Amino acid sequence: MDIQVINIGDELLIGQVVNTNASFMCSQLLKNGFRVEQTVVIGDNGIDIHNSIADAFKVVDAVILTGGLGPTKDDITKKVICDYFDDELILHQPTLDFVTSWLEGRGVAMSDTNRTQAMVPSKAVILPNRCGTAPGIWMENDGKVLISLPGVPFEMERLLTEEVIPALKRRFLPDEHYICKVVQTIGIGESTLSDLLEPWEVKLPPHIGLAYLPDSGIIRLRLTGHGTDPDKLEKEIQAEIEKLCEIAAPYVFAKEDKKMNELVADLLSEQGKTIATAESCTGGYIAHLITSIPGSSQYFKGSVVSYANSAKINLLNVSSEDIFRFGAVSQPVVEQMAEGARKAFGTDYAVATSGIAGPDGGTLDKPVGTVWMAVASADGVKSKLFTFGNAGGRSRVIYRAAIRALDLLRRELIHD
Amino acid sequence: MDIQVINIGDELLIGQVVNTNASFMCSQLLKNGFRVEQTVVIGDNGIDIHNSIADAFKVVDAVILTGGLGPTKDDITKKVICDYFDDELILHQPTLDFVTSWLEGRGVAMSDTNRTQAMVPSKAVILPNRCGTAPGIWMENDGKVLISLPGVPFEMERLLTEEVIPALKRRFLPDEHYICKVVQTIGIGESTLSDLLEPWEVKLPPHIGLAYLPDSGIIRLRLTGHGTDPDKLEKEIQAEIEKLCEIAAPYVFAKEDKKMNELVADLLSEQGKTIATAESCTGGYIAHLITSIPGSSQYFKGSVVSYANSAKINLLNVSSEDIFRFGAVSQPVVEQMAEGARKAFGTDYAVATSGIAGPDGGTLDKPVGTVWMAVASADGVKSKLFTFGNAGGRSRVIYRAAIRALDLLRRELIHD
Repeated sequence: MDIQVINIGDELLIGQVVNTNASFMCSQLLKNGFRVEQTVVIGDNGIDIHNSIADAFKVVDAVILTGGLGPTKDDITKKVICDYFDDELILHQPTLDFVTSWLEGRGVAMSDTNRTQAMVPSKAVILPNRCGTAPGIWMENDGKVLISLPGVPFEMERLLTEEVIPALKRRFLPDEHYICKVVQTIGIGESTLSDLLEPWEVKLPPHIGLAYLPDSGIIRLRLTGHGTDPDKLEKEIQAEIEKLCEIAAPYVFAKEDKKMNELVADLLSEQGKTIATAESCTGGYIAHLITSIPGSSQYFKGSVVSYANSAKINLLNVSSEDIFRFGAVSQPVVEQMAEGARKAFGTDYAVATSGIAGPDGGTLDKPVGTVWMAVASADGVKSKLFTFGNAGGRSRVIYRAAIRALDLLRRELIHD
Repeated sequence: MDIQVINIGDELLIGQVVNTNASFMCSQLLKNGFRVEQTVVIGDNGIDIHNSIADAFKVVDAVILTGGLGPTKDDITKKVICDYFDDELILHQPTLDFVTSWLEGRGVAMSDTNRTQAMVPSKAVILPNRCGTAPGIWMENDGKVLISLPGVPFEMERLLTEEVIPALKRRFLPDEHYICKVVQTIGIGESTLSDLLEPWEVKLPPHIGLAYLPDSGIIRLRLTGHGTDPDKLEKEIQAEIEKLCEIAAPYVFAKEDKKMNELVADLLSEQGKTIATAESCTGGYIAHLITSIPGSSQYFKGSVVSYANSAKINLLNVSSEDIFRFGAVSQPVVEQMAEGARKAFGTDYAVATSGIAGPDGGTLDKPVGTVWMAVASADGVKSKLFTFGNAGGRSRVIYRAAIRALDLLRRELIHD
């Protein structure tokens, strides 16, 4: 059962907004046995919307639109749907009641603009939106299903998972099962890994495929399989994953599609250990990655972002003499930062970074991308030097350094 | 001059990777007078790639592909291009030389897999890639131009801006000029703003359009105009922006498309002032937003992420009695955090947050989304309570709180 996704919005087409809706929709649909065959982005233009719907229905039986349902002038999707299905807009009283009480709860008066949110095609099944004023719309004609959702990500996400996917499952029986598994490596380049895996990869059965997803030092290896028997498929893919992990053992850090901060969070929770960070070049990004996970206050005690040397000295007890002698980006300083943070926050572990994120500040000895890292624990402090280079700019150095720092901590937690 | 963008990659279609390439390409092309008419995402599948190219050339004269040029097994774009243009792959010696020295510089031996990177269609013009091993490809036939770029974002970005756009400008004269301007508001909902602006909006000339881009408390209002005389168009749009800003004055915080952290960075640089943060619920995210800007070490001295109460007491000198009496999420505590950070880092300003990011930790009195913020300066400390609600989850509360905290600081800097 194939689906097309059409994301509507001038803001997407002129590049002002990144289309995160498409990836969310694709992954959720695939998990439930619906393969997205293509995604298309078009502007807020009635003719383009109409033509894209018509083109999509030549290939698939179900199309999901996002965008163009809001109260503002540029939102025209509902009119196009009526035109396409030869229908008209009528007032939907339950939606009007909901919008009224939703606005009342926010102390906002009902306006004519808000009232239009309750106008829906007369033949539509209404999918209630509990996070906003624009409901989802399900239209069906001649065996073709058209679903229209708001473009605001969290409204779309809830409608898709709670309303659309269950309805799709009732309406269409997924005929094939898709299973995706991810194995993640760190510290090896794509070409080298590809050469290493080739003898195994060429022997993969035709219904199982491998893809490389490199991103800032991490390579996610994705195995995708399809078949009619999900249990058999699951076992086949598991067996291939075992082979893959044996070949690439030194570089594999996860046999699942969890982010590095999630893996660290799991380990800290399981072991009941606590953590703090001392960040120079990563500027609070490691703390942000850790605290973006619900429940992190159980193990995360805090961070000192010590951009200024005075902060390293006063808050982390780093020796001013060592900063003068070795520089802020040096092994003794980063080790003292980690030890200082561990002491200041009274934690089991502390991780520290000091480096040159660029674009300025690089020298011949310590070019942009040079980052010292340390992990302090009851057993002492371990440190490591990384050179990430300059390609990709400041944000890439910050990101790569944060991920490697979390990986150092992860290795310490599993005694790797 | 319209262009179609086709992004190739199973990883995009199964939702494992967000397609940031499309938005970057659209915005860069539009800036240079090339309108992207549609973007399409398809899988690593020869037939789909072939069909999408054929479909696109029915509508436009130039198509840009990304993805499918890497050294791994799932990369097939070059073969499809040869097939489409009835061409064959040949060895491109300058690319081979570059790949060889590029790998040598990284201490990696040349492999057969890497050698395939230097195989290119015989009729292609080669666009050198200085950030990776896969070059860009420019093919032309019967007035139709097909450009193929690597899918790795920073490689694509450099090739697009340094090679593709200059070449497109030489090849096609942009016939119409497009100008986009953005005005940003904070603290007003989309419907209310839409009602406020309607009398002005309905009088906009037909070649100037308005769009609303709401995101986590900020609404970016985008005015897009097109015309043959860029100077006249610029003046027309400026005049409309002045009218718009007068109507929505209390909510407008920027007449340009700069992010809140960039606006704050500009003000701190101009005024030669310094800043520190004390973060509880934002967990280092404000520090990250500030330090993601090049040169921030000039004005940012550091942050204490005080997740644990002990950190608030020991590092920020918050009264333990006040934490006990009023709770960590309270006006006295957040004010003391800001004052404590200002003193600890010796800065002109300090901004502090303390709130409940969720999903747990909410109470009847202080539900999830309750955030106290404070800004300390030589003039004393100002604080404000925000209630962001629970919709959108933890990351949305953190994001909204960080942006509002930066806005508080911005208002303090401009004496608003």
